[in-house]
Amino acid sequence: MTDTPQFRRLALIGLGLIGSSVARAVRSRGLAGELVGHARSAATRAKAMELDLLDRVEDDPAAAASGADCVMLCSPLGTYVGLMQAIAPVLEPGAVLTDVGSVKSCVIRDLAPLIPPGVHLVPGHPIAGTEHSGPEAGFAELFAGRWCILTPPPESDPAAVERVAALWRAMGSTVDIMPAEHHDRVLAITSHLPHLIAYTIVGTATDLAEDLRSEVIKYSASGFRDFTRIAASDPVMWRDIFLSNKEAALEILQRFSEDLTALQRAIRHGQGDILEDRFRRTRAIRRGVIEAKQA
Amino acid sequence: MTDTPQFRRLALIGLGLIGSSVARAVRSRGLAGELVGHARSAATRAKAMELDLLDRVEDDPAAAASGADCVMLCSPLGTYVGLMQAIAPVLEPGAVLTDVGSVKSCVIRDLAPLIPPGVHLVPGHPIAGTEHSGPEAGFAELFAGRWCILTPPPESDPAAVERVAALWRAMGSTVDIMPAEHHDRVLAITSHLPHLIAYTIVGTATDLAEDLRSEVIKYSASGFRDFTRIAASDPVMWRDIFLSNKEAALEILQRFSEDLTALQRAIRHGQGDILEDRFRRTRAIRRGVIEAKQA
Repeated sequence: MTDTPQFRRLALIGLGLIGSSVARAVRSRGLAGELVGHARSAATRAKAMELDLLDRVEDDPAAAASGADCVMLCSPLGTYVGLMQAIAPVLEPGAVLTDVGSVKSCVIRDLAPLIPPGVHLVPGHPIAGTEHSGPEAGFAELFAGRWCILTPPPESDPAAVERVAALWRAMGSTVDIMPAEHHDRVLAITSHLPHLIAYTIVGTATDLAEDLRSEVIKYSASGFRDFTRIAASDPVMWRDIFLSNKEAALEILQRFSEDLTALQRAIRHGQGDILEDRFRRTRAIRRGVIEAKQA
Repeated sequence: MTDTPQFRRLALIGLGLIGSSVARAVRSRGLAGELVGHARSAATRAKAMELDLLDRVEDDPAAAASGADCVMLCSPLGTYVGLMQAIAPVLEPGAVLTDVGSVKSCVIRDLAPLIPPGVHLVPGHPIAGTEHSGPEAGFAELFAGRWCILTPPPESDPAAVERVAALWRAMGSTVDIMPAEHHDRVLAITSHLPHLIAYTIVGTATDLAEDLRSEVIKYSASGFRDFTRIAASDPVMWRDIFLSNKEAALEILQRFSEDLTALQRAIRHGQGDILEDRFRRTRAIRRGVIEAKQA
C-alpha cells in the first residue's frame, strides 16, 4: 500500500457500486492528485456530491475526462462506445484509458479503433462486487484482498499497464494479466453462467402461483436464498454482460444444459448410481476452492 | 424452550449432521429421559460415543428402537424401508415414529403399510442444515430459529403430532404442518432444484481442461463459489432425495429448462430488452426474502 498519487487527475465515468468504491479507495489512500467524476443521472451526481466522494462531479463526460491522465470507465458495457465518442476529442497523449467491465474482448474490439494516437488502452476487471448497486453501496475496502485482472492488447505500453496495476495494488488487490479472450472464457464459467442460472431459477419461482410463491420465500433458507441474492444484481449491467460475451456464455451454457439433461434423465429413469457418482465428483472442486482460500 | 423431557426414551436412527445435532440439542435441553442411537457404520458409532452424544449406541437398529416411545429416522431416505422392517417388531403401541427426511410423500407411501397397530407415524423435516456431513458436523443450535415442517397423514392422532411438534419447538424451531404432497412441491423449488443446478454447474466445471479448471477455482469469488458450497452436500442423501421426489423435481426442472432456453435464445439473438426485463423482475422475490427475514 502507498499514499503516493498514482495519477495527477483521475476521472471516473460512472459512479455506481464500483465507481464509488474506487472513489472512496483512491481518496482514503491519496492515490490521485485530483478526483473527478461523471454520472449520467442527475440523482447519482447529486448523491455522489452529498457523499463527498470526489473533488468535482461533471454533467458532461468530456468535461470530466478533460485534462485527466487516467480515465476509468465504470458504467455498463453498453455505454462505452457513446462515452468514448464523447471523450476521445479531449483525451491527451500519454493519458491512460481503463475500465472495470466484466467482459474484456468487446472493450478492445469496440474501443481500440476510437482511441486517439498516444492514448493507452488498459482494460481491467476487478473480481469484486456485491449484489447492491449505486453510489451509496460502495465502500473503500471492496477491492482489498481480491483479484484484479488486466487484459492489455499485445502492443500495449508496459509503463501504462504498470501504472494501472499499481493503482489496483494500492487499493489492496492482487493483479493478474491475461489475454482478453481467456478472461472472457474463465469469467463465463465463474460468473456469467452462475448469474444467468440464478436469474433463471428466481424467475421460474416468480412465475409460480401466488400461494406457492409465498411459501418458496418462507422456506428459502434451504438453498434458494443464495440464488435470490445473486439474482438481485444490477439488471442493466448484466444485460450488457450477456450481450457482450455472447459466444463464451452460449458455449458454457450449452455444456451446462447437456449436463443438466443427463441428470434429468437419470432422475426420470431412477439411475441412482449415476446421480451419486455425479454428486460425489463435485467435491474435489469445493476442496480446491477452500485450498485456494476463496471459500 | 423447556427442560421437561418430551419423551421417556428417544431413539435416533442415523447419527450424521442432523441426527447428531438432534442428539446435542436434546441432551443440552434435557428433552429425553434416555437418548439411544444407532448408525450403520462402526466408525460413526465409535465417533458418536467418543463425542459422548448419547447414553447408548447400538449396532442393531431394533436394539436401539426397543422400548423407545419415540423413534426418529435420521438416515438417507433409501434406508427407511429396510430399517422399518428391522424395527417394526419391537415398536410398542403408543410409540411415535418420526423422521427428518427431505421428501415426505414417499415416507407415508413406503412406511405407513409397515407401521404396527397403535404406533403413530409423524413425518417431519427440519429446514436446516449445512454442507458438512457426519457426527462431528452437528451442533445443538442447528434448529434454533429455523422452520420444521410436519406432514402427518390425515388420520393422525393429534396428541402424537403435538408431542413431535413440542420436541422441535423445544429445540428452537417454529413448526408448520402441511400435507406431504404440498411439502414436496415447495421443497422441489426451494431446495431440490437449487441443489441439482449447483451440482450440475460444478460438474460442468469439473469436466473442463485442467488449466481452465484451476483458474475457475482461482476466480471463484465472482459467483461460482456459492455453488461449490451447495454442491459439497452429502451425495447419498441427495441421490435419495431425487429418487424419492422424482415427479415434483422433474416438473420444476422442466419449467426451469424452458425458462433457461428462453434466456439462451435472447442472448443468441441479442434481445437486450428481454434479458433486462427478466433480470429486473427477479428483484421482487429477493425483497420478499429480505422482508421474511430469511436473507
